[in-house]
Amino acid sequence: MTPPRGFPEAEYRARLARAQAMMAQADFSALLLTTEPHVRYMTGFLTRFWESPTRPWFVVVPATGDPVAVIPAIGAHLMRQGWLTDIRTWDSPDYADDGESLLADCLAELAPTGRIGVPMGIESHLRMPQDAYARLARATGDRLTDDAFILRRLRLVKSDAEIGKIAQACTIASRAFARVPEIARDGARLDDVFRRFQMLCLDEGADWVGYLAGAAGPGGYGDVISPAAPVPLAMGDVLMLDTGVVWDGYYCDFDRNYSIGPANGTVRDAHARLIDATHAAHDIARPGATAADLFHAMDRALGGGSTGRLGHGLGMQLTEWPSLIPADHTVLEPGMVLTLEPVVEASAGRILVHEENIVIRDGPAEWLTGPAPAPIPELGS
Amino acid sequence: MTPPRGFPEAEYRARLARAQAMMAQADFSALLLTTEPHVRYMTGFLTRFWESPTRPWFVVVPATGDPVAVIPAIGAHLMRQGWLTDIRTWDSPDYADDGESLLADCLAELAPTGRIGVPMGIESHLRMPQDAYARLARATGDRLTDDAFILRRLRLVKSDAEIGKIAQACTIASRAFARVPEIARDGARLDDVFRRFQMLCLDEGADWVGYLAGAAGPGGYGDVISPAAPVPLAMGDVLMLDTGVVWDGYYCDFDRNYSIGPANGTVRDAHARLIDATHAAHDIARPGATAADLFHAMDRALGGGSTGRLGHGLGMQLTEWPSLIPADHTVLEPGMVLTLEPVVEASAGRILVHEENIVIRDGPAEWLTGPAPAPIPELGS
Repeated sequence: MTPPRGFPEAEYRARLARAQAMMAQADFSALLLTTEPHVRYMTGFLTRFWESPTRPWFVVVPATGDPVAVIPAIGAHLMRQGWLTDIRTWDSPDYADDGESLLADCLAELAPTGRIGVPMGIESHLRMPQDAYARLARATGDRLTDDAFILRRLRLVKSDAEIGKIAQACTIASRAFARVPEIARDGARLDDVFRRFQMLCLDEGADWVGYLAGAAGPGGYGDVISPAAPVPLAMGDVLMLDTGVVWDGYYCDFDRNYSIGPANGTVRDAHARLIDATHAAHDIARPGATAADLFHAMDRALGGGSTGRLGHGLGMQLTEWPSLIPADHTVLEPGMVLTLEPVVEASAGRILVHEENIVIRDGPAEWLTGPAPAPIPELGS
Repeated sequence: MTPPRGFPEAEYRARLARAQAMMAQADFSALLLTTEPHVRYMTGFLTRFWESPTRPWFVVVPATGDPVAVIPAIGAHLMRQGWLTDIRTWDSPDYADDGESLLADCLAELAPTGRIGVPMGIESHLRMPQDAYARLARATGDRLTDDAFILRRLRLVKSDAEIGKIAQACTIASRAFARVPEIARDGARLDDVFRRFQMLCLDEGADWVGYLAGAAGPGGYGDVISPAAPVPLAMGDVLMLDTGVVWDGYYCDFDRNYSIGPANGTVRDAHARLIDATHAAHDIARPGATAADLFHAMDRALGGGSTGRLGHGLGMQLTEWPSLIPADHTVLEPGMVLTLEPVVEASAGRILVHEENIVIRDGPAEWLTGPAPAPIPELGS
């Protein structure tokens, strides 16, 4: 059953209330948001127009009262369809003043004193020119400071409505993966498989395909982030497709492996170990366990020695916090959505990666994908 | 005829030579690159993995010698397939030191003294956490400074190989637009049209569909950046689809309008004026004319009073510099690729936008798309 699109205003008011409670606790008079997910989280502003890097977009969250959008005029019509009422615009790009004075005035009005939080920590960036930021820092009396991870903490736990959208993206991609036998076989070119797989995702209901990577090679592959080469699949190849389809602004992020023709013992074993590892993590994925616990559960199932991260958060972005690494001690809470993404080296320089998506619940975690069975699927020639 | 994928090493060496000549002139000892297009421009590193915001990626361009990549280990395999040989990696994310000391050491080695240029001006951003940037600025003795638009100037004029890739993206999208009558008619839902149009782009050869926006409404639409609503098309609607398909890392960016059923006089006239305006700009788009000249040519053809920008550069990103606005006095040179994007208000609050892509040549500009004929296409019911 397809969930409704958008969110009721109450969802945004709840987000704002949580933000302002955290702001009060950390003594912020405002937050300044500049990136797509942060702006969308607070306003509902959903557009692929962020693909254009030209214009900066700003949202100011005051300590009390509603957020204010300070945005290019080209976005006003769409922003007015959301819940914000105070929308201030300028004609961008403006080489003399690309929203800077409008933003500075807004901050002076809504937060004349006190600290202004800006996401500055790991996994963040500022989506405005660095020189404009330096001028803004001066114009605000050097009151811009790290947001104490307020935005991260807000987005870490998803609402039921958000989880419903992620689940819908997972459902769509799952249906597309089930149709991979239609497009992948001995002799099919990898770049055509990528193209056709994206068409399957769209045909199954994706709004767009925000991410597709993958690889194919004899007994495994060299990495998991490469674009597709125009190289034909061959018997004995392991094909991996890793996708993030978007539904109403929310991502899935999981992959599937396929053997072209019968899999050899090494590949069958490697795939089965990956499945074991995801189950080992799922078994302990409950409130109170940590991100590091999930890493270690998978690492143990794989025989130890894992490097890199073995999963991560998921939601409005393809990857979010936490990271499933030994150093991440984030305590799991109901509503967190995670990927479990173990990796094994099947032979020298040849890896296999498997990935599932789960949501933390009171009690056992809920699978949003699969879980895939241990035998690697074999595609006919 | 499909152009070859990738670039020969000579293309990258030419880019580097131009960069280092500009660096010498502006007295930089290094450039620091952090964003996807900048890293790719200098290294050829093409991956959709940038969709994950987790990890920072760095490339250092020294005053002499080859660039050095300072990147997360997950990217090493792919980076090694390019032309760079000095690739330094760390296991990211690392909460204690996410590449910062590796980068600082690299800068200290390659540029122990002198200014280090970082893109900081309009249309740029820095893709690394702001707090890490502040620490890096201190670690480098406050030698990070604006790059004097070196990266912008480098990318402003495209090579023949780059133009070939943009032209291929344009060809693919043109073939998809020609098939819109297969998917759009009275009663078709706009979100389904969006989904099917992306499938057509892939079917015609797109690597992925990096951008699709559009709208539909009686006699015009309210904006051009909205996602699709699940609303059926109706007789008298004007449907607009605006797409940026990607081929080998390069974009097209143009749109087409369609009338659902017969167009009324107002719509026919508005569409014809838009076509006139693109021709007016194309007529004067030659070396020596300026971006502002093209704006004014279109504005005059539309009867004056235009606001916003009426086109822009195009290439590795959906939108690039220059902007076709009165304040942009960029002088056109052969090899610049531009969109011409006039807008008219057909009736109160109802606009139409048309867009074509051209490349500046010695002599008349070359159309990469269309040009579309004056009559708006009418789709049967």
